[in-house]
Amino acid sequence: MALVVQKYGGSSVADASCIKRVAQRIVATKKAGNDVVVIVSAMGDTTDELLELAKQVSPLPPGRELDMLLTSGERISMALLAMAIANLGHQARSFTGSQAGVITDSSHGRARIIDVTPSRIREAVDQGQIAIVAGFQGVSQDTKDITTLGRGGSDTTAVALAAALGADVCEIYTDVDGIFTADPRIVPAARQIPRISYEETLEMAACGAKILHLRCVEYARRFDLPIHVRSSFSTREGTWVVSDPYSEGTEVEQPIISGVAHDRSEAKITVVGVPDKVGEAAAIFRTLADAEINIDMIVQNVSAAATGRTDISFTLPVNDSQVALGALKKIQSQVAFESLLYDDQIGKVSLIGAGMRSHPGVTAKFFGALADAGVNIEMISTSEIRISVVVGQNEVDAAVTAAHRAFDLDSDQVEAVVYGGTGR
Amino acid sequence: MALVVQKYGGSSVADASCIKRVAQRIVATKKAGNDVVVIVSAMGDTTDELLELAKQVSPLPPGRELDMLLTSGERISMALLAMAIANLGHQARSFTGSQAGVITDSSHGRARIIDVTPSRIREAVDQGQIAIVAGFQGVSQDTKDITTLGRGGSDTTAVALAAALGADVCEIYTDVDGIFTADPRIVPAARQIPRISYEETLEMAACGAKILHLRCVEYARRFDLPIHVRSSFSTREGTWVVSDPYSEGTEVEQPIISGVAHDRSEAKITVVGVPDKVGEAAAIFRTLADAEINIDMIVQNVSAAATGRTDISFTLPVNDSQVALGALKKIQSQVAFESLLYDDQIGKVSLIGAGMRSHPGVTAKFFGALADAGVNIEMISTSEIRISVVVGQNEVDAAVTAAHRAFDLDSDQVEAVVYGGTGR
Repeated sequence: MALVVQKYGGSSVADASCIKRVAQRIVATKKAGNDVVVIVSAMGDTTDELLELAKQVSPLPPGRELDMLLTSGERISMALLAMAIANLGHQARSFTGSQAGVITDSSHGRARIIDVTPSRIREAVDQGQIAIVAGFQGVSQDTKDITTLGRGGSDTTAVALAAALGADVCEIYTDVDGIFTADPRIVPAARQIPRISYEETLEMAACGAKILHLRCVEYARRFDLPIHVRSSFSTREGTWVVSDPYSEGTEVEQPIISGVAHDRSEAKITVVGVPDKVGEAAAIFRTLADAEINIDMIVQNVSAAATGRTDISFTLPVNDSQVALGALKKIQSQVAFESLLYDDQIGKVSLIGAGMRSHPGVTAKFFGALADAGVNIEMISTSEIRISVVVGQNEVDAAVTAAHRAFDLDSDQVEAVVYGGTGR
Repeated sequence: MALVVQKYGGSSVADASCIKRVAQRIVATKKAGNDVVVIVSAMGDTTDELLELAKQVSPLPPGRELDMLLTSGERISMALLAMAIANLGHQARSFTGSQAGVITDSSHGRARIIDVTPSRIREAVDQGQIAIVAGFQGVSQDTKDITTLGRGGSDTTAVALAAALGADVCEIYTDVDGIFTADPRIVPAARQIPRISYEETLEMAACGAKILHLRCVEYARRFDLPIHVRSSFSTREGTWVVSDPYSEGTEVEQPIISGVAHDRSEAKITVVGVPDKVGEAAAIFRTLADAEINIDMIVQNVSAAATGRTDISFTLPVNDSQVALGALKKIQSQVAFESLLYDDQIGKVSLIGAGMRSHPGVTAKFFGALADAGVNIEMISTSEIRISVVVGQNEVDAAVTAAHRAFDLDSDQVEAVVYGGTGR
């Protein structure tokens, strides 16, 4: 008998009929002879509605109270799901994050999981019950206050609980059939990826593919827990995220391109005329770190010998831009840079695949395909298994399409699904 | 420095602007030099909306899951209220029933409070914080599951917590200025009662006055805790419910009529032709008790000597009627009664006041006033401080008005407020 952990996002439990459908799927898994633990997000737009209510009473609500408010969302969906399962004649019990033993630090709104002690879940499972657990939430080890895990939190709950329970698989249900070689809204010929490594999935997530959140993949990699990303609207096999996806194949010597990801949520800031002295770049990025801004790509060109100055460009979430520009202006005289350039009309296109670095032809083919499509490259950044370029935002589609075709990722069959994002 | 416990019902926190207004009132109490603990119900119609959702997924949801679902309502209102207070520059912390130490038995949907261990509340108050506590909910001592207290639960939470904390007063906020001598919707000249005893309040509550719930008054009487029922829409003094309201007056030798209550929510069942033998009435009421039906008034006439049979009439909540009739039909042959009569077009009108029994003129005056108003009396029941009659439902208004005038309760001033019920 296998122990299956399933996670259903907000769109899978958006209303009563969705909840009843999910209940049937859970019961089918149980009937197939498995123990089942389910992690569930808040229904559809519940979180946004609660945030709107909070905004109406306070412009800057305390984090502790915001967490108390938001966690009511899963409380509703998990109780309803347990009722729907009971109505199908199976025993189900719902548990809050605290009851499920999800112990976190005290950082309200973005708590990290410290420990998982799922004794009540194990007890319910041992009694033949289906355990329904609130995603996204935990309880602070120090203050005993309710916390939330921040973006991607429900996926992280699912993987953390699956690891603590020694589950055989963590199934993440979404509204598409898994991870695709590119966004099918841009590339209709995009293919579903049957198996992919943690590392490639991490790069995909970091590069804008919204199927799985970084934290949850990192967690799964640490515990070597297989994730099965699949659709709650079909029974087809989805994408398996595992440690060694190619162990049974023979293609490992070929450069394997998993997919093309893109991201339109970033902006680019260029610090112009930075004196080419030791410590200047450090001062700039220390300032940004102090403002809690997550930097993505960084590019520095060699300095012009004549001036002794250089330009440093970096990308960051567009929402953080104003804070970053403000922080940098404050140190302009100290660092003595000349000016700041800002561009939010950019997009990032990334090619992801194992063994890329040892195959120099990959880079050449990627850049050649972009050139043939008339796409101008503004910034380049690479890792062991990824090449990312920044292009004009209106050239993202053309770049993704060209790269996808150049690496023979196009399927014969056009997928009809829509490539959507997950909630929390 | 006094410790004030305040309870706000669902209509007082129906939306963001209501919540902000309540926050200002709480802060004003704090600024006046008091420690403040607040109990809050779910916002407006939240509970009904959640029940509707539950109905959509399951016709008969398990009690444990229904409690998990419904308790999300207070979680929302208490977090928003804490945010609104924080926004006014004061420290507030919200607590679930479980966090507040409200320990109950395991009867989901109608749990009884076993113990209150409010160490976290006391700690918050000692740190100068305003504690906001979810009403209506607790945690089971045995199963550690979340429970709800049933109807009137938030009032009961408030009084129980006030007693456990040794509070100086428990203020119950509602949408009227306190307890009135009659429903002002029927008797526009009804007066607000400044002080009233626990016993009279219990009789008023049992007789249909919807201001305070029976359980909460019983709890307050046991701990001799003063309740101050007042409006959240004004700063006027409301009604004080205390052990000895007349200690300072001199009127104690006069029959004091506190008010006239009425109730249209009951029905009457008559068991016709019950053999006048020992044990037959017991069999009937054992059957009803086993069906968990709460009986109110019971009347049995002397049996007709010729037949050796008698009629037993009783009133009960109209919602329980079908279950009661079904249960009684099952024992018809065993008890050998002749038939069942059912009437849901009844109303109960009650006169409540201390020292009534020792003043026989009260009964005569009450019945005389009803006769003058042309109201026919169907059933009569009395206690030490109450006389109740059952009349036709369309004669309730006339009966209340006549009794109110006969006992000189009419005020010179007509109250403009509407006499409303409390939620949970």
